Amino acid sequence: MGGDHGIAVTVPAALKALSRHESLVLHLIGDEPQISKELARSMGQGLSTRIKIKHTADTVTATDNPAVALRGKNNSSMYLAVEMVKQGEVEACVSAGNTGALLLTGRHLLKTLPGIDKPAIVARIPGAVSKTSLLLDVGANVDCKAEQLFQFAVMGSVLAEALNRSPRARVGLLNIGEEDFKGNEQVRKAAQMLEACEAINFIGYVEGNDLFEGVADVVVCDGFVGNVTIKSSAGVVNVINTILRQGKRRSWVSRLSSLLMRPLIRQLQKRIDPARFNGASLLGLQGSIIKSHGNATVDGFVSAIEQAIREADKRVPQLIADRVSTIMAANADTVAKQ
Amino acid sequence: MGGDHGIAVTVPAALKALSRHESLVLHLIGDEPQISKELARSMGQGLSTRIKIKHTADTVTATDNPAVALRGKNNSSMYLAVEMVKQGEVEACVSAGNTGALLLTGRHLLKTLPGIDKPAIVARIPGAVSKTSLLLDVGANVDCKAEQLFQFAVMGSVLAEALNRSPRARVGLLNIGEEDFKGNEQVRKAAQMLEACEAINFIGYVEGNDLFEGVADVVVCDGFVGNVTIKSSAGVVNVINTILRQGKRRSWVSRLSSLLMRPLIRQLQKRIDPARFNGASLLGLQGSIIKSHGNATVDGFVSAIEQAIREADKRVPQLIADRVSTIMAANADTVAKQ
Repeated sequence: MGGDHGIAVTVPAALKALSRHESLVLHLIGDEPQISKELARSMGQGLSTRIKIKHTADTVTATDNPAVALRGKNNSSMYLAVEMVKQGEVEACVSAGNTGALLLTGRHLLKTLPGIDKPAIVARIPGAVSKTSLLLDVGANVDCKAEQLFQFAVMGSVLAEALNRSPRARVGLLNIGEEDFKGNEQVRKAAQMLEACEAINFIGYVEGNDLFEGVADVVVCDGFVGNVTIKSSAGVVNVINTILRQGKRRSWVSRLSSLLMRPLIRQLQKRIDPARFNGASLLGLQGSIIKSHGNATVDGFVSAIEQAIREADKRVPQLIADRVSTIMAANADTVAKQ
Repeated sequence: MGGDHGIAVTVPAALKALSRHESLVLHLIGDEPQISKELARSMGQGLSTRIKIKHTADTVTATDNPAVALRGKNNSSMYLAVEMVKQGEVEACVSAGNTGALLLTGRHLLKTLPGIDKPAIVARIPGAVSKTSLLLDVGANVDCKAEQLFQFAVMGSVLAEALNRSPRARVGLLNIGEEDFKGNEQVRKAAQMLEACEAINFIGYVEGNDLFEGVADVVVCDGFVGNVTIKSSAGVVNVINTILRQGKRRSWVSRLSSLLMRPLIRQLQKRIDPARFNGASLLGLQGSIIKSHGNATVDGFVSAIEQAIREADKRVPQLIADRVSTIMAANADTVAKQ
């Protein structure tokens, strides 16, 4: 029911995902009459056996205060969806709803993995060349201790390695300068922790301008910095659009070039607007939750569903738990030897 | 002597600025033989009477630790230039050198204005439409208390009003959501302080995607967030370049469109790459210091010199001091009435 367009986007996206993935089964949680109506409108042949509907009329809205939403609405579509993950009835949950409420509901019902203090939101960042890198946290935690940044590095490594099938994901720490004396205390301390950890391929500090250069597979920062970064990058893309639209009104050369450039610009936007890299993982919970952008299109929501499929296939929460316990064991070992 | 190119950029830029501004007098601080040689190569007629050279062979390098640079090099070109501001021999100083060393030297020699805890670096951000907005801090202060963010808002307001001749600069606070409950403690507290202050036209929270939309004349954030933001925005522009270069290698349509688009792209870059908006003010000191980007071109360094001229003309440090004392008096008044 979530997002700006609700079932007008989520239901067609569900059908599209089902037609692409033969073994996929989707549970749609929300207002049954509305969902059925939307399904009837666009249902493809033979898909109905892989769709289950769980009815509830209750929803969390975008403007609900997350804490209030969690307390008052344990019959909302969001709550019921996350509960199904907890009960093992589904392998992952996808929502385009209120991010704060989704985070709180996830933490409340699923709990964080052992060794993880708080979940983080992971955005996929397009690279100049071709490779995608992961940026976390992009909004779950406004203030982060060094320990949390370290945990983000662990979780990001596991996800990058699972998704890209690369053996040793390169992890960078977002900072304002490459020199050792720059940056804040948390970041410097996290760097020391990462350098000392053999299970993580830490490549050092990266700066804002490196983000889209693909120098790292995983870039770690606090949620305030990460959120502003992805939004301001998207803002630059919007400026490009505006300027190009202005260009159209000028000379015939400008108009012609705008016309010719349109496919290139569209490709550009797809590649550099992180908001279109839809499907942000809430990492660190004992279960998979994928957050779709609220204004995602049908194709955008399909991307989010496909991200959920990948994470369910790889059992990402279990992989993170394994890695954390390996690191903890190695640390205990080091302490014991000292 | 500073920056990646030293006098190969700064001397031609100085001559260009002198030819543009008839009442300008420039003091060049650095290695006299080298400067004279460069001047001889490109000196325009009649400019020599407005150039003074102060010789020193000592410089601060880009890799010098700022604190060490300040302690060990009080005969460096940077130190001598800032000292001339202190002595009133010049009205402003422009440097393309080590930012950290320039900040420390500025604070050490000039001191901050009464009521200002620490100086901030201000970047000019291009807007989608046409207006430029100011973003501060972009790197001087990695951690900021609410009081500092408030002071940034005051300083930014004064500068925006002086530069744009607008009576009431709109001030926004960079945050990760517009709702009251989002953001960190410092930001929320700063918002309360700004709302209570009549001398500032506070418009509320702005998000990363608003930065280039010109919704505010001044956007306030801590130096870590600001630095990552301007660098990642510049990174997006680099990605565009790379993709366009790739496009050239493809079909003739791509090649033709790339060719036609080149002027538009160049214009785009000029407008959206904050690194090219050269000449960042170090606000909050008892004197004007302008930091040029280290890799600025001749025209970039001219922009920085022109920014210094504007700030000297407007006596920005004095304007800030006046505004701070007005606000302090109003606060004292409020407290007395309570």
